[in-house]
Amino acid sequence: MPFEVQILGSNSAAPAHGRHHTSQSVRIQNYQFLIDCGESAQLQMKRYGVKKNRLSHIFISHLHGDHFLGLMGLLSTMHLNGRKHELTVYGPIGLADIITIQLKYSNTRLSYPLNFVELRSEQSELILDNKVVSVFTIPLKHKIQCNGFLFKEKPKPRKLIKEKIESVDLKIAEINSLKNGEDVLDEDGKLKYSIAEFTLPPRKSRSYAFCSDTIYNEEIIPLIKDVDLLYHESTFLHELIDRAKQTFHTTVKQAATIAKKADVHRLILGHFSNRYRELEPLLAEARSEFKESYLGEEGLTFYVED
Amino acid sequence: MPFEVQILGSNSAAPAHGRHHTSQSVRIQNYQFLIDCGESAQLQMKRYGVKKNRLSHIFISHLHGDHFLGLMGLLSTMHLNGRKHELTVYGPIGLADIITIQLKYSNTRLSYPLNFVELRSEQSELILDNKVVSVFTIPLKHKIQCNGFLFKEKPKPRKLIKEKIESVDLKIAEINSLKNGEDVLDEDGKLKYSIAEFTLPPRKSRSYAFCSDTIYNEEIIPLIKDVDLLYHESTFLHELIDRAKQTFHTTVKQAATIAKKADVHRLILGHFSNRYRELEPLLAEARSEFKESYLGEEGLTFYVED
Repeated sequence: MPFEVQILGSNSAAPAHGRHHTSQSVRIQNYQFLIDCGESAQLQMKRYGVKKNRLSHIFISHLHGDHFLGLMGLLSTMHLNGRKHELTVYGPIGLADIITIQLKYSNTRLSYPLNFVELRSEQSELILDNKVVSVFTIPLKHKIQCNGFLFKEKPKPRKLIKEKIESVDLKIAEINSLKNGEDVLDEDGKLKYSIAEFTLPPRKSRSYAFCSDTIYNEEIIPLIKDVDLLYHESTFLHELIDRAKQTFHTTVKQAATIAKKADVHRLILGHFSNRYRELEPLLAEARSEFKESYLGEEGLTFYVED
Repeated sequence: MPFEVQILGSNSAAPAHGRHHTSQSVRIQNYQFLIDCGESAQLQMKRYGVKKNRLSHIFISHLHGDHFLGLMGLLSTMHLNGRKHELTVYGPIGLADIITIQLKYSNTRLSYPLNFVELRSEQSELILDNKVVSVFTIPLKHKIQCNGFLFKEKPKPRKLIKEKIESVDLKIAEINSLKNGEDVLDEDGKLKYSIAEFTLPPRKSRSYAFCSDTIYNEEIIPLIKDVDLLYHESTFLHELIDRAKQTFHTTVKQAATIAKKADVHRLILGHFSNRYRELEPLLAEARSEFKESYLGEEGLTFYVED
């Protein structure tokens, strides 16, 4: 089952060097999510084959234009396509106002139910919880209220050992107990089928943390500890640390430090400043601190194996 | 001196087939204007070399997303680039609210003065008038308030015949009189220098009318009579006349009929429906009605000679 992050936009501030504003497609099993939705995100989705009609939840980190100005266009296009099923948008206070006023003046009544969930960013909160995934906010420190998002797959069932299972006559309830990690006992409370004999450990639950935009902030480390994939904004090379602080952004080296301290498996770099046409120096800086660093170039998909 | 219209976006509703939402660059002498500003307009401006910092006035026809959703991004990018000089945006009631609320929530104080001029669309109004050009609204009939825009170059001075001028000793005031089309008389009121002898007729004043979106509406004909260039939306082939009426749009044939009845010199077609991947059938339909019809394909520039 898929667990994938595809980069749709990688540039900060204004689009440049063929790079677009922040947006990412996140596929987790049968869920299609979108994080941030900079201008032209709907075009990037089309370019890279992200299916709009599978989209169920959109997560907006903050209300700087480079992170949400494509949202209204995407919502409109889904309306024009006659979408019927519900869509939920998570974002800071104000996002609902911004969208609602535009619907009002264009005299549009959307063809589908649109829900807004207003986020604060004082502490990490569980904002979505279903059978497949839990999504938590990651409060960030930026010029305006801003959240990252942590996606954690739900614990999975233990794997049944087929030959063992077929050698006995199990009831459905007994199979479910084994899958859920419980030994099956007989009426006298004696061990009948043990998980050790009949099952293998479950597939691991995968995780992705998205962190943009923020000043260097070690407070997020406990939240993102051990994630499989971390996207962390890395707007500037470390030589521009003063500029990074002043604008509440992070340097590449700092992003890599966060990744190292949080023991994440892989780091995706992004939100690149316009001043960098070539990104190799950013990758080199990151890898000197944390080897498993990668450029979040547009169109690239980062897969986490099952 | 230039008088040019460059097509930056040609598609209606949702972007498709590599075509973008409506936006046009209009250069008249030393003025750089923009009409409509669909999503990605700033990227299209970059692609086709339209200089943002020369832009002084933006005209927004109406508040359907495909005509203005790129405006906030463009305004933001000019702010990030440190623009200092004034910008004026003309558009329907509501546009100022939509932009202002986004500036508020992003906590942005623009680096340049931004003026809004709110337009009604009951009758044609003069909305910009300077030494070079007059701009008038063209009230259209769409689902919501919508204006087209008529750009008329100011009358130009008569051309002096160099050899004639050099053969006599003219004062500056006398030269100006001739340029302005007035014969020069002596103190006794007798003809001294005639415009017929010393000048040639002035270069013609050029004109451009932009009409999108609208149902077929002959009331606009007196306003756009004899213009050099007419852009008229032509969303559907005429076989979809019912669909055109229902959605307050115009068919290609109808657009060509308007062009013919208004005796315009050239017609630019645009605002193409997503259903048309290939546009040649639209061009053929237009030309069967009005020969000087052209597809408003993206990147194309329509020049009007001096």
